Amino acid sequence: MSEHLKIVVPGYEGRAAQVAAGSRIRITDLEGCQIGDLFVMARADVAEAVSPAVTRLETFNLFPRVGQQFFSTRHRLMLSFLEDTSPGFHDMSFAPCDREFYRALGCDAPHPNCRDNFFRALSGIGLQRDSPPDPLNLFQNTVPDERGEYVAGVSQSVAGDHVEFRAEMDLVIVLTACSADLDIQGKAPIGGCSSPLGIDIFGVP
Amino acid sequence: MSEHLKIVVPGYEGRAAQVAAGSRIRITDLEGCQIGDLFVMARADVAEAVSPAVTRLETFNLFPRVGQQFFSTRHRLMLSFLEDTSPGFHDMSFAPCDREFYRALGCDAPHPNCRDNFFRALSGIGLQRDSPPDPLNLFQNTVPDERGEYVAGVSQSVAGDHVEFRAEMDLVIVLTACSADLDIQGKAPIGGCSSPLGIDIFGVP
Repeated sequence: MSEHLKIVVPGYEGRAAQVAAGSRIRITDLEGCQIGDLFVMARADVAEAVSPAVTRLETFNLFPRVGQQFFSTRHRLMLSFLEDTSPGFHDMSFAPCDREFYRALGCDAPHPNCRDNFFRALSGIGLQRDSPPDPLNLFQNTVPDERGEYVAGVSQSVAGDHVEFRAEMDLVIVLTACSADLDIQGKAPIGGCSSPLGIDIFGVP
Repeated sequence: MSEHLKIVVPGYEGRAAQVAAGSRIRITDLEGCQIGDLFVMARADVAEAVSPAVTRLETFNLFPRVGQQFFSTRHRLMLSFLEDTSPGFHDMSFAPCDREFYRALGCDAPHPNCRDNFFRALSGIGLQRDSPPDPLNLFQNTVPDERGEYVAGVSQSVAGDHVEFRAEMDLVIVLTACSADLDIQGKAPIGGCSSPLGIDIFGVP
């Protein structure tokens, strides 16, 4: 029996889900211009996770794009990139935003952040890690110039844009709706607050 | 009393060392054109390691260079980059080379590789990790083009070139003399084999 699981991740929050091998995972930017940090781990052992650095050994590419595969810290195939209706800006170079990131931007009080939201979502399903794996930063528009210096651009995705992946093994995923709502390199995000993302999991029949 | 520890890492091998906070770590390309994968972990708990992805949250830069600092998976300061006498090409985007990497290049038998050498060197001092942390790939000349596609260039370092770091906490380091000796993207490495690297640790007085 085919199954369809639907989750809405509110702005400034994160959610975890279990995904069986062969299922498709669709992430939708519901209101537009919203970054989603997608953390992908093996269900058998969440110490194993998608590694952008190992993936680059295979792809020799800085940016994730349709057709490519993602490999784990143990160099095993975890995920395939099936579809992208967005303008195609995604990142896999940056760690999730964290308290120190917002402190450096001038926040005195702790600011909501993807790192804390990752830990909260994962512990919500009874799992633990020492640190978050490196995420796929969906809809994140950070492109380095020819000297390697990153320019933080405003996300180009609009409401309804989605990306879709196939799980190549049994997975646990966490998706956080990135909490960035402050000027970064002098650019304010459109909307000025974190907005919701959709997760649709189309289960194997 | 100031101390000076000197280690030679033979080609195709790796070595581990303990480094006290405040010490300086010098890595020298002894014969030229040799990549070194430097793995940096906290002595108190090797699960904590330099994270290129967390470091980029601070530097917004793809390439490590003199003056910058390196941060851990727990976003704590681990290392400062003090000096570089090489042409300045270093990478922190790629995982260490591994068996799958050489298999894809056409090796039937297992090829020496930095991942296996990392595990061997770490277990040699009685420590374990599930997977290697992402390394600093010293003297590795891999620069992406404007589309994000990496071009594997020949290392530009010559015999005697070195880089130097300061340990900002008590560390365990592993350095592997990269085993790459095959055509990568149609380019043969100069010399055609892996050559030795020097580690000099100038201990705190």
